[in-house]
Amino acid sequence: MATEIPTVKLASGYDMPIVGFGIWKVPNEAAADQVYNAIRLGYRHIDGAWDYTNSAEAGKGVRRAIEEGIVKREEMFITSKLWNNYHAREHALEMARLENEAWGLGYLDLFLIHFPISLEFIPFDKIRFPCFWSDKEQTQVTPLVKVPISETWKALEELVQTRENPSGFVRSIGISNFDPQLISDLLSYAKIHPSVLQIEHHPYLTQQDLVALAHENNIAVTGYSTFGPQSFLEMDNATAKAAKPLFENDVVKSIAQKHGKSPGQVLLRWCTQRNIIVIPKSNSVERLKQNLECCSFDLDEDEIKQISALNLNLRFNNPNTLGRPIRIFS
Amino acid sequence: MATEIPTVKLASGYDMPIVGFGIWKVPNEAAADQVYNAIRLGYRHIDGAWDYTNSAEAGKGVRRAIEEGIVKREEMFITSKLWNNYHAREHALEMARLENEAWGLGYLDLFLIHFPISLEFIPFDKIRFPCFWSDKEQTQVTPLVKVPISETWKALEELVQTRENPSGFVRSIGISNFDPQLISDLLSYAKIHPSVLQIEHHPYLTQQDLVALAHENNIAVTGYSTFGPQSFLEMDNATAKAAKPLFENDVVKSIAQKHGKSPGQVLLRWCTQRNIIVIPKSNSVERLKQNLECCSFDLDEDEIKQISALNLNLRFNNPNTLGRPIRIFS
Repeated sequence: MATEIPTVKLASGYDMPIVGFGIWKVPNEAAADQVYNAIRLGYRHIDGAWDYTNSAEAGKGVRRAIEEGIVKREEMFITSKLWNNYHAREHALEMARLENEAWGLGYLDLFLIHFPISLEFIPFDKIRFPCFWSDKEQTQVTPLVKVPISETWKALEELVQTRENPSGFVRSIGISNFDPQLISDLLSYAKIHPSVLQIEHHPYLTQQDLVALAHENNIAVTGYSTFGPQSFLEMDNATAKAAKPLFENDVVKSIAQKHGKSPGQVLLRWCTQRNIIVIPKSNSVERLKQNLECCSFDLDEDEIKQISALNLNLRFNNPNTLGRPIRIFS
Repeated sequence: MATEIPTVKLASGYDMPIVGFGIWKVPNEAAADQVYNAIRLGYRHIDGAWDYTNSAEAGKGVRRAIEEGIVKREEMFITSKLWNNYHAREHALEMARLENEAWGLGYLDLFLIHFPISLEFIPFDKIRFPCFWSDKEQTQVTPLVKVPISETWKALEELVQTRENPSGFVRSIGISNFDPQLISDLLSYAKIHPSVLQIEHHPYLTQQDLVALAHENNIAVTGYSTFGPQSFLEMDNATAKAAKPLFENDVVKSIAQKHGKSPGQVLLRWCTQRNIIVIPKSNSVERLKQNLECCSFDLDEDEIKQISALNLNLRFNNPNTLGRPIRIFS
């Protein structure tokens, strides 16, 4: 019997489970099994992206679970994201089509603009992963190109299935790594309201006004890297290595102890209780289970405040540290 | 004999003096005299705005200095800014025309979008100052309205005098209080390059990536509130009252002492030496003089670093503290 996961009602009208399994950095060879096992554990929401390069494998895992009758397609919530080299209208449309085919599930529940960064187009058969910000040879930096966010957003709007656009294969669209000013500007011209904003969010980077702006405007918020530095240690991120791990933070530890929960569960509950969707990843089945069960207890208001007060404006996922810095935060 | 003030070459081709006299909060009845006296002291750059409500008086002060032969019009650099209620194209064009008439100097050197915030239109004869964010009766909050920044920017482009547009009465255009993502987006569609970005900038809010982004893209940066909390104390700003005054900061004080300069001069030099334009205000003639002379000495690299290291991401000018919070920062 699967754990009952609360859902968030999106602007599009669809429901999104508040806990998902994020597959960033899940190796290709493990992705099908890990996704399948996550679904067996009760996960109904998978957070992927073109850039994670494991959509085809993840889709295979979902299809296996469907074939075995563990879950129905419509019970699953699949997110993918448009990568930076494909912001121009024609490229965005083509990339979405390829990404939908890679998952092989008929449609995508949510499709996000991954970053407000537009890089030069690389043909789909020429791109080599992990491509991130450089070219396929990893020797040269891909140039920035001028594509207004309004063009990319309009392309995403074309993907959405509506009565007028029955061939659309995306249910909800949204944005990721956007700051308040660009969001407000987007809201001034969007014909389809963004359903979701996905951002780095943890006690060292609470971004309270950004979260409030989104919620006030009926945009659901997904927080990534809920455990703070944790995800970035294996990437040799200097800021992450200098930061004290959140699992060892006294405030987090003592609250966890009080509730008889793990620090990870406390960090996840600190998000979900404030209506922030989480997408933790883990290689351990035990921890995957713990993460999924993070809504089984409640923090009190003072505990939430104590954790929020840990804010240091400390960002780990910032392309300003690249060889050719890309500055999207102030 | 006026002090020689270095200038910054703008994208428009014009030169902008790196020290100016900012007239925010200069009372209407004092503005003409204060501006006139500043010009006598050697100031050649006045930073005003529709919202400061003293443009007509300031213009009178400039005209008096011109009439007395102290300065020529083309030696002066006059900045004004478009207020939030006038972002729609027709209103922006009309407001700029009225603002240019108020100054009465034939043209404006620089015209900025004051905030990336669009509020409902208030007819020009109905607005009552200080209007700031509320309606003319100060009882009700003016609603936000949906005007894309691209529309407002295109209106500003129409104001610029060019060979094709000889009736334009603005020489350079720019933006204020914009963050990196909105700036990059603007650069993707701007036909006329923004010359200047004006932002809150002091050792408690260094915004290094924002400044670097602007400079890398040939946008000059003007920093306001160089003295940090100072300007906001008289406005009863809670954040400013809680912050330690920069004039009493040990690092700033000891560097000032070493150079035989005032803390204010050190703070201004910390900006101008990094090519950031400053627009300090003072009611004291002695301090106005000191401010103007802030380029007469040099800090060494280590001193600049020490001051930059005071950064706290502490922002004093944030409309999120209004009755109906407006969230433009994360």
